Amino acid sequence: MTDKTVSIDIRKDLFGANEAAASINADIFRKHGLKTFDIMGSVGTGKTLLIESLCIRLAGKYRILMVAGDLATTIDADRVASHGVDTVQINTGTACHLDARMVRYALREIDLGKYQLMFIENVGNLICPAGYPLGVDKKIVVLSITEGPYMVKKHPLTIKRSDMVVINKIDLADVLEFDVDALVNDVREVDAKLQVFKVSSKTGDGLDELIDALEL
Amino acid sequence: MTDKTVSIDIRKDLFGANEAAASINADIFRKHGLKTFDIMGSVGTGKTLLIESLCIRLAGKYRILMVAGDLATTIDADRVASHGVDTVQINTGTACHLDARMVRYALREIDLGKYQLMFIENVGNLICPAGYPLGVDKKIVVLSITEGPYMVKKHPLTIKRSDMVVINKIDLADVLEFDVDALVNDVREVDAKLQVFKVSSKTGDGLDELIDALEL
Repeated sequence: MTDKTVSIDIRKDLFGANEAAASINADIFRKHGLKTFDIMGSVGTGKTLLIESLCIRLAGKYRILMVAGDLATTIDADRVASHGVDTVQINTGTACHLDARMVRYALREIDLGKYQLMFIENVGNLICPAGYPLGVDKKIVVLSITEGPYMVKKHPLTIKRSDMVVINKIDLADVLEFDVDALVNDVREVDAKLQVFKVSSKTGDGLDELIDALEL
Repeated sequence: MTDKTVSIDIRKDLFGANEAAASINADIFRKHGLKTFDIMGSVGTGKTLLIESLCIRLAGKYRILMVAGDLATTIDADRVASHGVDTVQINTGTACHLDARMVRYALREIDLGKYQLMFIENVGNLICPAGYPLGVDKKIVVLSITEGPYMVKKHPLTIKRSDMVVINKIDLADVLEFDVDALVNDVREVDAKLQVFKVSSKTGDGLDELIDALEL
């Protein structure tokens, strides 16, 4: 298993370098008085629609910047931009997560002083983004009840590394015969103190509570 | 961007080493007359239920081995084992995909001559597993219509690296107002020759066609 050991060491180095870069980002964001959120979650959990819904509700109060991480397209950034929000696209090619340096590099020519709020939509993936802090105020993981009942049990590390959990698409709970409260309990078993929000970005249910908790 | 370059070189080395290991696996599987399938797809796309459904239909004809890749649990392996199928669990910890060596190591004490068919359920992730061949006959990617309409456009490389696409949960198409044929067309745009199957593991729709195509 020598090869496996080597690859783990490399990962440790990468993680360490990323944490240092994230700390630099955090200083930059703080200096500009920018509130920052890293929105993580698997493909199709509704991260983009959640960001769109938050932008629509908050656009009158804040200048917002959205950073979209995606392997190959600008689909998500285009959707958010359609609401008049400034967006920055990061195409990661084959990389399954954003890292702190990618974000800083993408923002190098942006005047961050123009904005008070930044949403970063991470690459659609429930595993890797959790290991890479970006220097934001809060890492928020979006789960969708369409993913079945085991997302929390199978991804305890992602939950532990998040500051907040959003359970999305609750409007489909009846159709899918999904027990949302059981999923909330799974989160509590991983971290009893973690804030959990039951939301439907489509109907707007739960968004006011989420916005309150973001202290916006 | 020096650090980025370094990390890309490391990835290249890892990919190369994995391809060599996959080729060794392929020889071993062939020697034992084992048909092998790597089932990839994001969290909650129904990979496990698909494998369960295939096992139920095929158990009378073949001795089946199921290898389950999962970060932390044995939930999927336990479900498949409940149908009398032999299972092997690989817990990857934080790793977002199986690689060829992990699979060989997990199988080191298994008498492969006892089986004619092996399903490997990869870690729930639509990105990383596609980059790591395991030495199987076919890499099959499972998409679920609950993930929204952009999965194919956003993950062209995963589609290109797959031998077959299964679009799952088509029983929910009406409720979700989902255009399944548009998704099929997206696949065709990436690879016009790729086989695409519209399936509901829950109702059984489309499974016979899929089994025919697996040449089982």
